[in-house]
Amino acid sequence: MTPTRRNTPRKPDAARRSGPRESPDEGWIWGRHAVLAALANKRRKRVSLHVTRNASNDLTEEDRAFARLEMPGELDAKLPPGAVHQGFALKAGALEPELLQAVAEPTHGLLVVLDQITDPQNAGAIFRTAAAFGARAIITQDRKSPPLFGALCKAAVGCAEVIGHVQVTNIADTLLSLRKSGRFVIGLAGEAEASLGELIAAHAGPGLVIVMGAEGTGLRPRVADSCDALARIPMGPKAESLNVSAAAAVALYEASRHDPRINPKR
Amino acid sequence: MTPTRRNTPRKPDAARRSGPRESPDEGWIWGRHAVLAALANKRRKRVSLHVTRNASNDLTEEDRAFARLEMPGELDAKLPPGAVHQGFALKAGALEPELLQAVAEPTHGLLVVLDQITDPQNAGAIFRTAAAFGARAIITQDRKSPPLFGALCKAAVGCAEVIGHVQVTNIADTLLSLRKSGRFVIGLAGEAEASLGELIAAHAGPGLVIVMGAEGTGLRPRVADSCDALARIPMGPKAESLNVSAAAAVALYEASRHDPRINPKR
Repeated sequence: MTPTRRNTPRKPDAARRSGPRESPDEGWIWGRHAVLAALANKRRKRVSLHVTRNASNDLTEEDRAFARLEMPGELDAKLPPGAVHQGFALKAGALEPELLQAVAEPTHGLLVVLDQITDPQNAGAIFRTAAAFGARAIITQDRKSPPLFGALCKAAVGCAEVIGHVQVTNIADTLLSLRKSGRFVIGLAGEAEASLGELIAAHAGPGLVIVMGAEGTGLRPRVADSCDALARIPMGPKAESLNVSAAAAVALYEASRHDPRINPKR
Repeated sequence: MTPTRRNTPRKPDAARRSGPRESPDEGWIWGRHAVLAALANKRRKRVSLHVTRNASNDLTEEDRAFARLEMPGELDAKLPPGAVHQGFALKAGALEPELLQAVAEPTHGLLVVLDQITDPQNAGAIFRTAAAFGARAIITQDRKSPPLFGALCKAAVGCAEVIGHVQVTNIADTLLSLRKSGRFVIGLAGEAEASLGELIAAHAGPGLVIVMGAEGTGLRPRVADSCDALARIPMGPKAESLNVSAAAAVALYEASRHDPRINPKR
């Protein structure tokens, strides 16, 4: 984030924020799917586009005119070590998050809340899965979440551009507010009594909210207390837990089983 | 693989193999869960164990006597760039795969077959999920699969040590042989007509075999032809596909819904 950006009216509380997790205003996106989806997203500001000659064949004429042709090694040098860019690198603006009010109504569809999920690959995988299973939006905490750039966008293979995204300051308060709007909030917790399938079957519908906590620590106590109910994914004794993106896939699939847009015959 | 190992009687067909994917006889395992699980696995030969002073507190007395105390940077230098070792690095022998006959009987439980899944993180995540949902074993192709070391073991967080593993030369032939044993083989394919839930409900039981193909290319034609049926995971229009480890989580969860060990009331 540049100093001048810090004072734009868009982020009135920027001065009160601190810490490395604050979302930057610009960042790199790499990988074929991630870059093509970002270029197709009118809400993404383009700063500069860098592609190999081969990759440029996949661009529209307009994008090709904007792109700079470079060698793969020149792209490597711009990006973090190990970034698998496939010949595509886009410096882009941050997406303006949606407002909570725009997605709060139960009729607007399933919401997924990520509580302290800091790994961008896991977060990106969840954006992809949420898009696949028709969720309306993902809600993250503004200061503790990986930004919608880089590894997150790569893992989301373009889905970070097509699913709604809301940033909130306080997850627990947000859940309470969603419940007041008439939504039913389920938190995933390995120690819960109720099984996910039973709980979703009893409360199926577009008003569901599914809350995922960090691997290891799980949901924070106040976040867990702010859910209507906690659910576990039934498992055998051989593994202690699922990866958080695997758990999200299961939860979103289970919710989608009751979604007439995805399973019309049910 | 060392030249002397190439001539051990354990691998009579080693001379006929070639290519970079051949499983090495020894390799590195890193990360707290992965190393502690490998140390607890009596079938894992230990070559050398390198831990930081802090990490050594998590070892048994016997393992501590075997370990060499090193600085984090010394571990970094032994491992591939970016390996998140958490103070634990074990040089270990390869696990001897199980024989297909040991897992072929339908009563032995769910099998997961990975066709051309070369990414070790995806493969490791599937080992973890398969262990969580009580699968009997994972079947991989001997020459095209990542070995049970390194990134695979890290992503499996110890589960590579506790779930059965079978290596076969030909996936399609293996599926035909499993069907002859009385198993029902379902291949995951985005273009299939039947939905996964319907197909599993119709054929639920310990005799199921679930076949996962590579992202992008999917199942190879002969592998798809060797299944009893193909199934798709129903999805909305916003994402083209799921990540293969997310798809595996969904498929294994769906199978586990009918498993009385995991869902006793069903």
